[in-house]
Amino acid sequence: MNQSKVTISLYELENFYNAIFTKLGVPEEIAAISAKNFIYADSKGADTHGVLRLPLYVQRLQKGLVEKNPNLKWELETDNSAVLDAGNGLGFYTTQMAVEKAVEKAKGNGISMVTIYNNNHFGAAGCYAKMIAEENMIGFVTTNGAPLIAPVGGAERILGNNPFSFAVPRKNHEPVVFDMANSIVSAGKLMVAHHQGESIPEGWALDENGEPTTDPYRAYNGGGSLVPIAEHKGFGLSLMMDILSGVLSGANFGKNVSGLANYEKITGNGNAIIAINIEKLMPEERFFERLESLLHMVVGAKKAPGTERIYLPGERGQQVQEKNRQTGISINSKLHEELQEIASSLEAPLYKFS
Amino acid sequence: MNQSKVTISLYELENFYNAIFTKLGVPEEIAAISAKNFIYADSKGADTHGVLRLPLYVQRLQKGLVEKNPNLKWELETDNSAVLDAGNGLGFYTTQMAVEKAVEKAKGNGISMVTIYNNNHFGAAGCYAKMIAEENMIGFVTTNGAPLIAPVGGAERILGNNPFSFAVPRKNHEPVVFDMANSIVSAGKLMVAHHQGESIPEGWALDENGEPTTDPYRAYNGGGSLVPIAEHKGFGLSLMMDILSGVLSGANFGKNVSGLANYEKITGNGNAIIAINIEKLMPEERFFERLESLLHMVVGAKKAPGTERIYLPGERGQQVQEKNRQTGISINSKLHEELQEIASSLEAPLYKFS
Repeated sequence: MNQSKVTISLYELENFYNAIFTKLGVPEEIAAISAKNFIYADSKGADTHGVLRLPLYVQRLQKGLVEKNPNLKWELETDNSAVLDAGNGLGFYTTQMAVEKAVEKAKGNGISMVTIYNNNHFGAAGCYAKMIAEENMIGFVTTNGAPLIAPVGGAERILGNNPFSFAVPRKNHEPVVFDMANSIVSAGKLMVAHHQGESIPEGWALDENGEPTTDPYRAYNGGGSLVPIAEHKGFGLSLMMDILSGVLSGANFGKNVSGLANYEKITGNGNAIIAINIEKLMPEERFFERLESLLHMVVGAKKAPGTERIYLPGERGQQVQEKNRQTGISINSKLHEELQEIASSLEAPLYKFS
Repeated sequence: MNQSKVTISLYELENFYNAIFTKLGVPEEIAAISAKNFIYADSKGADTHGVLRLPLYVQRLQKGLVEKNPNLKWELETDNSAVLDAGNGLGFYTTQMAVEKAVEKAKGNGISMVTIYNNNHFGAAGCYAKMIAEENMIGFVTTNGAPLIAPVGGAERILGNNPFSFAVPRKNHEPVVFDMANSIVSAGKLMVAHHQGESIPEGWALDENGEPTTDPYRAYNGGGSLVPIAEHKGFGLSLMMDILSGVLSGANFGKNVSGLANYEKITGNGNAIIAINIEKLMPEERFFERLESLLHMVVGAKKAPGTERIYLPGERGQQVQEKNRQTGISINSKLHEELQEIASSLEAPLYKFS
């Protein structure tokens, strides 16, 4: 075996997730849905949200910090809204349940909203917004997260970078999936730079005093923070996402959201999900035509020198996904060993790595 | 009279707007609502959206490019959604009508959505989101606009900077009003730099070839474009705002939205408005307590050196508003002369400037 990298197909990795969850006591249906949504990040090349995090989920399930078989409770249902107490279950599963409810509620009228509290990390927001788009609705999904960014002028992490996603259905094409977080770079980029002994560009992060730093360790582990995009704009957006997903849902919010690697606490994440039922606002065919016309303006724009192609939001991720479906993904040997240890301790089948 | 600046109170300026609209044939109710919402931008110090634009609106009304007494048509109403054909009326008025509909529709359930087509510029998005917050709902309002930004890698303006606003009610305080556009700076800043013969910092704008420029004229008048915040993120957000406000509503979208200064065409703006009825998702008192707790974390964060105070979104604008209510606003003498000419040509009363 190659000591530096191993390759695994997405199919086998999804089966591996499924087997691990099942061995940990997660019921079959929940394990299968969780594996399917967990692999979304791996498939899109979002390394920091995928397989790298499996050991954290395993620990959290083993320590009872995530419920294997959560008791989902629907509260305050109206014709077009509902609140889900996710029972501290795997966010990959609970969030899909909330998405299905939002789609069902949006069918009767033009728009619906579902909030979730007592949830866990759900991976990539785009995975869930896309499910809504696959029902010919416009999907919006947001989450709060463990604190990473300081207010402008601050020197203390107060908010997560609180990602959100919009997904819009197209006719005969994959939906447009726009998925962003409110920091300039992810915390994962800082961790990678630190492990490789590299400095980071000025502008990405602040140190523990709120001053710019190029030291990824100070920024990430030493009490520093990530810089929000466009300063007040990114911080304000993160605040709005926490108000929708944290304050309004009944979940933890702000400094009280806990991270995956903190084994003292549940994370207490919250979410907001909105589904817009296109056909209640415009005949579907007309919407699809108009959307294609706008997208055509974008990709057909006059190009700057050096630009070969203009991409729509999410298109690069789709390209990576198509490639990864062919080639599988690479895992470094240290992580591979960790996965093997997990598999053997749980007596889970060891899938074929090459 | 001071030749360089004159000062006018907000009260008198609002009355002046009202009189001008009325003299142009706008019915009283529409003129009054329009004046009230037009002055919002002046009151908040958003100079480029306020009185500077009055001559443009006057021209457009006189040329029949904006309907004085629009025929508003409600279409496709459901229990929680509706589409407004704004009849090409003044956006300050039509948008308030749509906001009132959204609030009414949200009362029965958790959330509502209203789209608008055949609309005109409405001034500041925050003005309308705030109206929703004043009904103890969370408001979201967006608009498309004339093209200003190019896709990343592009050299042609395709989308407006498509502002949007979230407003959140507080107990015993003004709502939190977060209002942003998706370009790093407004087009107004480029115009001001050009008039003052100054160059602009690299990073704000591109020239007609999609290359960075420090020449505001090339960027604004010479076929260049504004740079979106955080590159793909800002462009993607602008695209989503145009899908919601333009494509989905039936309005113009993308390159087809026209600017206020183009006297050949109607603007054809579109909008999307969402109202979230807090009390259907959480007891109101509990929401207010939780919100204050989050806002307290933000403003109470440890400060970086040199920071005296951490501001919430919209708080600086509120401070400016309080000051402007006391002192009035300054208008340069050239604009003042233009306003006087408009007043005398319409036989409108000349309000007291000092």
